Amino acid sequence: MKVAIIGTGLIGGSMALKLRAAGMGDLFIGVEKDPEHAKKAIERKIVDEVLSLEEAIENSDLIILSIPVDQSLSEIEYILNQTDKQIVMDVGSTKKEICEVIKNHPGRDRFVATHPMWGTEYSGPEAAIINSFSGNSVVICEKEKSNADALKTVEKVYSVLGMRIVYMDTNAHDLHAAYVSHISHITSFALANTVLEKEKEDSAIFEMASAGFESTVRLAKSNPDMWLPIFQQNRENVLDVLNEHISQLKKFRSCFEKDNYEYMRTLIESANKIKKIIK
Amino acid sequence: MKVAIIGTGLIGGSMALKLRAAGMGDLFIGVEKDPEHAKKAIERKIVDEVLSLEEAIENSDLIILSIPVDQSLSEIEYILNQTDKQIVMDVGSTKKEICEVIKNHPGRDRFVATHPMWGTEYSGPEAAIINSFSGNSVVICEKEKSNADALKTVEKVYSVLGMRIVYMDTNAHDLHAAYVSHISHITSFALANTVLEKEKEDSAIFEMASAGFESTVRLAKSNPDMWLPIFQQNRENVLDVLNEHISQLKKFRSCFEKDNYEYMRTLIESANKIKKIIK
Repeated sequence: MKVAIIGTGLIGGSMALKLRAAGMGDLFIGVEKDPEHAKKAIERKIVDEVLSLEEAIENSDLIILSIPVDQSLSEIEYILNQTDKQIVMDVGSTKKEICEVIKNHPGRDRFVATHPMWGTEYSGPEAAIINSFSGNSVVICEKEKSNADALKTVEKVYSVLGMRIVYMDTNAHDLHAAYVSHISHITSFALANTVLEKEKEDSAIFEMASAGFESTVRLAKSNPDMWLPIFQQNRENVLDVLNEHISQLKKFRSCFEKDNYEYMRTLIESANKIKKIIK
Repeated sequence: MKVAIIGTGLIGGSMALKLRAAGMGDLFIGVEKDPEHAKKAIERKIVDEVLSLEEAIENSDLIILSIPVDQSLSEIEYILNQTDKQIVMDVGSTKKEICEVIKNHPGRDRFVATHPMWGTEYSGPEAAIINSFSGNSVVICEKEKSNADALKTVEKVYSVLGMRIVYMDTNAHDLHAAYVSHISHITSFALANTVLEKEKEDSAIFEMASAGFESTVRLAKSNPDMWLPIFQQNRENVLDVLNEHISQLKKFRSCFEKDNYEYMRTLIESANKIKKIIK
């Protein structure tokens, strides 16, 4: 099988490394606008060659669309226009808009909408990690709209990556993603800004930074070119969750203001129930 | 040297394990109210025996006070009353109140106020980890109020633990701790509650939980018996940081409400500067 990786960065690059190692795919073709990334992707053997989008589509059996979700949205129709037998999958963090934009496309059934739940705060081919997805879940949306063989191939891809497949409609996906992924990025960005603002007047503020702080703030390193389009496409859900999160923080604030540590204990004990979810 | 560990949990237990392995201390005496913890501390060779507080003080050269900060506050005077040649150090996350309460005590110079910047979301002797503190910083407050030999021994302890010593006054310590440790716990508790509330109506919400989410929410497992007294003692600073953090989140909210993704980009790029701090 020949695999085209449209966007040889963190996600596309990590997938290619693992699929090649597992023997799923005998040629990997990259499509990459950034010449530095293209060079690095070849150096790291993520792809064998870098071609134009047209050539890559023509010469591949499976096309993995792993570019920011705004770019996916503007490319997907064009790609499906060039596709007859090829299978096209995306890996974006939002699913509603991309499925909406191609719902009446004659090639809709060549497309499988997916979102593997793995990532780091880094980007580009240098950030790609071979055994990265294993043990996490991947969401496939609107599986009934994909051709059975296309779906089967994509399921095989995720099985090789060691992921647990969850099927969901696009509304449920985008809502859930807002809760268990997108909001975490907003809180990290805001926490980083909170502390960086303070650093302007007190340069020693980070001398004591600990592992706990790093853990809550590491996502603040994430790339705006990737995250802004996600927030924009999932605006309604993220805004709802953000409002809820601000309300939860205000409960803590009110406890401080009223010296109500009994109720603060209730809030903390309630938060402790996350133990049953996150081991 | 004989070492008394008052509170054989995460911090005291981790210290004892490392000090013993490094040959600093030939007898480790535990003081532990919880009989299960006492048993576990002996089983794990954190301590050789468990004695009463009085016996432990009498039979030790170095006393490590590693109990929640409200308990430290009520015990410290009593301990210093029994102390003549012994060295007493605490490891609590707040420094102002404990230094205040003993500032006129005749045994003040036997005491060294410290805060090693390491911890996990777990507690108890089972959570103790031998090589845990290494590479992080430890704050020592009011070093000029400690006897030179006492200070030297405590500095030796932290050198054995592999920590970088930072000297600070208690006001600076408590302020900085609010920014780079305490607020992270509040945001994690609040984020856990945000998502757990949603789970009540939508039980599948965690199916997609990813590493990024786990990273921002793991501190929400932390023990209220440890954290409530910290928040209470550091109320003014934590409340200030919490207000700033809510303001930062509201900037993101306002961007969503106004569809102002240009300014959201500015906010994210500003947060990205955390890269220069957190590698």
